[in-house]
Order: sequence, then structure tokens, then C-alpha cells
Amino acid sequence: MEGRRWLRARLADAELPSRMDGAGNVYGTLRGTSDSGRTVLVGSHLDTVPCAGALDGGLGVLVGLECLRRIKESGQRTERTIELVAFSDEEGRFGGMFGSQAAVGSVTPETLEYYSDLEGCTLAEAMRRCGLDPLRALDATLDPNDIDAYLELHIEQGPVLDNLRKPVGIVENITGLFKWLIRIRGTANHAGTTPMSMRQDAFMGLADFAHEIPRILEENGSELSRATIGTAQILPGAPNTVPGLVELTIDVRDTSAEVLEDLGEAFHRALSAIARRRKLMFDYDVQSVIQPTACHPDIVSLVEDTASELGLDYHRMPSGAAHDAQIMAQLTRVGMIFVPSKDGQSHSPAEWTAWSDIEAGANLALHSLFKMAS
Amino acid sequence: MEGRRWLRARLADAELPSRMDGAGNVYGTLRGTSDSGRTVLVGSHLDTVPCAGALDGGLGVLVGLECLRRIKESGQRTERTIELVAFSDEEGRFGGMFGSQAAVGSVTPETLEYYSDLEGCTLAEAMRRCGLDPLRALDATLDPNDIDAYLELHIEQGPVLDNLRKPVGIVENITGLFKWLIRIRGTANHAGTTPMSMRQDAFMGLADFAHEIPRILEENGSELSRATIGTAQILPGAPNTVPGLVELTIDVRDTSAEVLEDLGEAFHRALSAIARRRKLMFDYDVQSVIQPTACHPDIVSLVEDTASELGLDYHRMPSGAAHDAQIMAQLTRVGMIFVPSKDGQSHSPAEWTAWSDIEAGANLALHSLFKMAS
Repeated sequence: MEGRRWLRARLADAELPSRMDGAGNVYGTLRGTSDSGRTVLVGSHLDTVPCAGALDGGLGVLVGLECLRRIKESGQRTERTIELVAFSDEEGRFGGMFGSQAAVGSVTPETLEYYSDLEGCTLAEAMRRCGLDPLRALDATLDPNDIDAYLELHIEQGPVLDNLRKPVGIVENITGLFKWLIRIRGTANHAGTTPMSMRQDAFMGLADFAHEIPRILEENGSELSRATIGTAQILPGAPNTVPGLVELTIDVRDTSAEVLEDLGEAFHRALSAIARRRKLMFDYDVQSVIQPTACHPDIVSLVEDTASELGLDYHRMPSGAAHDAQIMAQLTRVGMIFVPSKDGQSHSPAEWTAWSDIEAGANLALHSLFKMAS
Repeated sequence: MEGRRWLRARLADAELPSRMDGAGNVYGTLRGTSDSGRTVLVGSHLDTVPCAGALDGGLGVLVGLECLRRIKESGQRTERTIELVAFSDEEGRFGGMFGSQAAVGSVTPETLEYYSDLEGCTLAEAMRRCGLDPLRALDATLDPNDIDAYLELHIEQGPVLDNLRKPVGIVENITGLFKWLIRIRGTANHAGTTPMSMRQDAFMGLADFAHEIPRILEENGSELSRATIGTAQILPGAPNTVPGLVELTIDVRDTSAEVLEDLGEAFHRALSAIARRRKLMFDYDVQSVIQPTACHPDIVSLVEDTASELGLDYHRMPSGAAHDAQIMAQLTRVGMIFVPSKDGQSHSPAEWTAWSDIEAGANLALHSLFKMAS
């Protein structure tokens, strides 16, 4: 709430009218010349993770604010109204993407009571504590007829631009993902008395599965595919006991829904084969599925042309992380600009982008936005 | 203490003199005809793990008791004195093998204060609570000149005899082991934004290492070699984060000290190669090393001949688990008899051995012991 007040104070300083909707999203408005025209949105989210850096989310909001201020100061008028938007809870203290989901109308009364933080505080309760009426989040929905496009600048949060030493990235699409919680069951046994050939070692099933990842990505994936085993619990978990159960997660991403489907089938087949070979059992819960989202080709072209005009050395790329733009694509045409993350670091105090790159990205956002609204 | 009192009462019923030494080991004596002869020991341990079955340890003590009773009742006299021994804390509420270590003289005053149970109660404190003077454990040492041999009957705790449907096993040697706590370090990164080729995934290093186990056992091990990854912590441990650190244990066993050494070198080389290939770092602590122990060939032959005379279908085999006999081998010639564990289950209420197999094992122990003492 403090951040929202700060942002609204800056908008007021710039004589830009602001408002906060029922989901806590803050909007700042730079009116266009045509009252009947559709609005161009620019922004990102104001929240970040605990122990984070300064840039994830906040940078996109500040760049948006600066764009509105520069255009206003320049005295030039755009045809369409430009609105800055700072979305609520993108990171997921409560579920994630709350603000943009409210904006596209996918928040329900159940959402408000269902999502809770690690301390068990529900989203509704947290909103009430901030003086907000939770049910008003359902009024935060934007009318697709009013919105022309959404542009978001964000740090890359990966190492690609930093490795290529390019100041900006133009996002073509945002990867979709599926996440499975997999259980592989064998038989726990004494590590000394059980011959290797008589084991049903659940951990070795996991090791086999991990080893299938490169093959499956090569055979069924694209060069943008990613698969990660990020957690694994080995049970019972004693050095002298053959593991009887492992619980692991696999997070699989690609920019193509078809590729994701193929990867899912391939991973399922690999699990079946390993279970047969090692006399193990397996099952899995699909914990989440997010469909891949394409940025709108018109906006990608416009941003690309603008980068060329500005003489910026850009890189067309996918986004491996999820963003509000992915949600906003349900409502309108979206575009995204990336700036490099030093060593790919993010969600950490080591999050860093060179000022020269921030300037390049902000200029690209400014000029693209001006064109989009003209 | 209740178990010790019960055992001494049974010895008293059988008119066999008993004593408890300073380490809580209970001895029962059947005097031989020659006062100058050396003693033959028979027994096992009286304790077991929490939530255990009835057989691990206890069976060997009861079989020993029954041997002494039968020989006494038969009216036959052996030349050498036979002593039943029920060792203290084999399982390791406090460190493990306490009774047999005291018997061979490897307990020190530090042992008593250093070892403590999961609630933090030291061995010395627990002994005082039972009315024992801890330092008297140092007087429990046996004189090697007084002892001729040690025979132990134990459940196999593995599936070999049950699979072979053999009623008894004759142990040739008890495996040694080494246990390493290994840390593999990579770089934690976002699972979506980090291309597969730019990862330093510590978990994939672990998966590689697990996959080297069969090759290393085939190339450097024997058919009795075992290697088990029983625990692994994956950090930071989030589904959408490439693991930056894994901590795992590997428990490696064989009956040959040379093979164990070769295996250690091969596992070290494998870790080095994986670390180089995946740009990871690794280190490990050697958490324990137990040297393999051979049962004495004379006793193995004697027990084998006896089994043949009794018409028992036996199997010569190694012990994959550690036993008091391993410690007693520092002092005297040792032999071990195994009886089958149903489905290889042990340290669980499912621990079970058919009565007919127990009878076979007990008869083998009785006749072997009688010969050993004659």
C-alpha cells in the first residue's frame, strides 16, 4: 500500500490523474486527443518476492511512469489515451497474477477466499486489513473494447541478453508450462543386506528419469524447451536404507502448446518404461498448466522497427518466465521488452541491470508507446 | 534392564550361574571339564530398534540360552566352558555395538560421555539412571587368552535365504563399508529463463553420479558389492528453480578391503569427471569406514560340516549388515549362522522367520557349539 501511495503521489506531481481499482491495481492516465479512441496500457507489477532486488516488476512500472511524464512534458499529444498500470500480487503471495487476472475478469469470489499466504492469511483478509473491500476486486475487470494494447518492460531474469551483450530483447512469445508432482514407489530395504539385483530402488528410478530429460528434449522438444527437476524428497531417507519412495516435481516449458503436449506424452512414456524396467510404480498430479502466449505480431514488428530506428542492438526472444502480459493477452494485444539481467540473476539482491541498458529499454518503450498511441 | 533381569531369571531356572558386566552385558556359564581351557562364547544382542520385530538380536540370545540348557540337560560335558553372552546396545541408541566394544576393550571414558541418544541423554547418564557405574564399562574387557571362539546366530535381515528357500546360511564374512556425505554445487537459477545449455544443475550432477553406480560396481566391485544413495537434499528446492546444491549420502559395502578401496577411488573419479563435464564443484566427508571381517575358516568349516551331518540345506554367504561378531573378531575366532528373513524384512514388525527355520538354525548352533567346546 505504501508503494501504491508513493506511485500515486508521483503521478499527482506530474499532474496525471490516478485511481486504484478494487484489486489494488493503480492506474495513471495521460489523456489522448480522441475521447472515443481505445486506451494503450503500459506497465508491470509493483510487488516483488521477499529478499528480492529492486527491478523485478518495479522497473516496468517506473519506466511506464517516465514514459507518461516525458510525453506530457514534450507537449506532444497522442490520439489514444495512455494509461500506466501497476498490477497487484504478480509474484504470488496469494496465488499470483492477481491484479492482471482481476483486470481480465478471471477473479471470482472463491479466488479471494481460496488463496492464502504462507501464514494462512487469505487474500480477502489481507485486503480487508488494507481497508479494501475484497469483492470490489470483481469490479476491476476492463472492457476489451476499451483497450487497444498492453506493453510491458521487464528484466529478462535469465542470462541470454547478458551473454549476448545486447541491451534489449523483444519478446516474441511467453512460454507455457506444465508442472507435475510425481511419486515413484519401490521398496525400502536394508542397504547392506539387499543385493543390487533384488532392489526396487525408487531413487534409481528418479535417476533414470532425470537422465531421460536431455533425450526427450532433443527428440520431442524445441530449442526453447526446458525441463527441470527442482525438488525431490527421498524416503525413508536414511543412508543405510534403499529408498522406497521419491516425490519429485518436474517443470516443463515451451512456447508451443503442441510441443508441450508432446513433451508431456514423452515424459509419461519414460516413466512407464522406467517403472516396468525397475519394477516400480508411479503416479503424478498435474499441479499446473499454463498455455503459451504469443506477443501480438503487429506490436512485435512495431517495437522491432522502433529499436532499429533508435539504433539499438536487440534480440528477438521468448520469455521463459510468466508475466502479467500473459494474462493481459486474454484481453488485448500484448508486447514485451526485456532488459538484461546481470548473470541472469533475479529474485535475489544480486538482481542488476546496467543503467545504460535501462535507458535503452526505457527509450524503446517510450518511442514504441508513442507510436502505438498515435 | 527388564530384559536382562528376565534372561538372568531363565539362567537361574536352568541352574546356570550368570553375571552382568560393567557394560550391561549378561553372561551365563556352563562350566566345562577342564578349568584351564578357554571359553567358547555363544550369543547376540538383547536390544533392538524402536518399532522392531521380535527376532533381531533376541533370537540369537534365546538360541544360545537353549543351547546351554540342552547341553546341560543332556548330561554330556564339554571340555571347554561355554558362556552365553547378551550384548548391550548393538543397535545404537548410543553409538552402537557398545557391549561388544566394551568386551574387546575399545570403550573409553570419552565414549561414555560422547555418545548420546536422540533426546540428548548421554550413555553415561543412561547407565547411571539404571544404577550402573559408567566407568565400570571399562572393566568389561575380556582377555583374548581366555576366549576360544564366538558363535552368533542372527536373522539374515535380507532376502537371499528366503529367495533361495534355504533354512540356514553360514556366514563367510561380514561386509565392510564406507559412507560419504557428498555435496555437489552448481548454480541455482530460474527454471524458465535459464536455457538448458547455460545451467549448472547440481541435481543433474547427482543423476549422473547415480547412473555411474552400476558401471562402477561392474568394473571395480565384486558380486557382493553394494552401493546405495539413501538420502539426498535438493536445494533450494523449488519446482521452478534449477537446483544449486545437493547433499547426498552414498553407502558402499563389500567383503574385501581392497575392493572397497577400489570402489572409493572409482566413485571419486566419477565425481571429478561429472563435476568437470557439468561445471559443478563437489566435496565429501567420509562419515564412517568399517573394515570387512572374515569369519574364521575353521569355524566356517566346522559349522558347514555340522550342517551336512544334520542334513540341512545351507547357503554360504556374506553378511551385508554389521554384527557384534564383527567386533568380537578383534578378540577371537568368530562364526555366524543366519536364518531366513521373510521377504528380507527387518527392523519392522513384519520381521519373521518360520519356526521350522528357527529350529534348523538352533540345532545347527547347538551341534556346532558342542563340537567347538569339546
